[in-house]
Amino acid sequence: MLKIFAAPSSIALASVLLLEEVEADYELAVLDFSKGQQREPAYQTVNPKGRVPALITEDGVLTETPAILVYIAQRYGPGSMIGANEPYAFAKIQELNSYLASTVHVAHAHRFRGARWTDDPHALEAMTKKVPETMAAAVSLIEEHFFVGPWVTGDAYTICDPYLFTLCSWLEGDGVDTQAFPKLLAHREKMLSRPATQAAIKRLG
Amino acid sequence: MLKIFAAPSSIALASVLLLEEVEADYELAVLDFSKGQQREPAYQTVNPKGRVPALITEDGVLTETPAILVYIAQRYGPGSMIGANEPYAFAKIQELNSYLASTVHVAHAHRFRGARWTDDPHALEAMTKKVPETMAAAVSLIEEHFFVGPWVTGDAYTICDPYLFTLCSWLEGDGVDTQAFPKLLAHREKMLSRPATQAAIKRLG
Repeated sequence: MLKIFAAPSSIALASVLLLEEVEADYELAVLDFSKGQQREPAYQTVNPKGRVPALITEDGVLTETPAILVYIAQRYGPGSMIGANEPYAFAKIQELNSYLASTVHVAHAHRFRGARWTDDPHALEAMTKKVPETMAAAVSLIEEHFFVGPWVTGDAYTICDPYLFTLCSWLEGDGVDTQAFPKLLAHREKMLSRPATQAAIKRLG
Repeated sequence: MLKIFAAPSSIALASVLLLEEVEADYELAVLDFSKGQQREPAYQTVNPKGRVPALITEDGVLTETPAILVYIAQRYGPGSMIGANEPYAFAKIQELNSYLASTVHVAHAHRFRGARWTDDPHALEAMTKKVPETMAAAVSLIEEHFFVGPWVTGDAYTICDPYLFTLCSWLEGDGVDTQAFPKLLAHREKMLSRPATQAAIKRLG
């Protein structure tokens, strides 16, 4: 059985959403970031990055959301979740998830996790200040150029949808006026109407 | 035929390395970043992100290095480049490439591209100052926990190798003492000894 390490309000929700979506049998281990559990030695042996999610499989540990999402879908999901075995369709899915990981999530991280990139208190404040602008620009690109609809890459629910949903659930907290992004708001409602989404949110808290 | 938009000294080298490695037939279009060609309208219609690489395929445009590498390997490479069709092996490859994109490359970008996250000159300086530390920490994690050898994920050359090679070629410029990373230095030599690597470097300049 799979085991996933996660934390509330973290990007691990995307992987938990997908586990619920594919009805995988899994154990959920919730870390308390307010107690710094992600940096404790016990967890460091699981994931030396000190981050979530980490997925424990029979073969070993997997980290990084884009990798975990592909793995879960390949094992348990329909082929349509990852482009139905067609290289270009799969690459378009990977393209979006890669953008979510390295641009959207990174823009968000400058709000609370700026200490990854500077120790200067003034610089941390300056970084936080620009987050509404960078997050709005990042999701604007998706709204304008990448959102196909009704799911983000087209007709099928793919591994991009739980990832996009999770990151977009942070937009209001990041100071972004989401009314400017009707496609993303409709996507949020579509996701929230799914029993799997409701179950994941309930389980992770 | 494929066409790839790239720029010297950019992460696009990783994709060009792989195109050479699999002996794909491709056209190389080199943008001059010093002239801001990546922000010109002609290129914005190709890639609204204003970045490289962008791969033009018969089906459409692909961006984001992790997605482009998978696509090239699926179309032209041996299965061993992407885990020989085994979900866990493939996910381990994706895990490393995702880390390279969202942690290693992002750490590096705080040296010259800090304006993505702040407009404050003092903050930009503070970010740049921490790059030697963050880059050393990021590649140290690979050296200690992820490098299997002789290629980064094990016996086979995979899509992680050109990506890792390209990012590690920036380490000295980022102020990192590479002598602390013997596995990564050996990997660099192994890559440099390949005709495909030499051809890609010669072509992209």
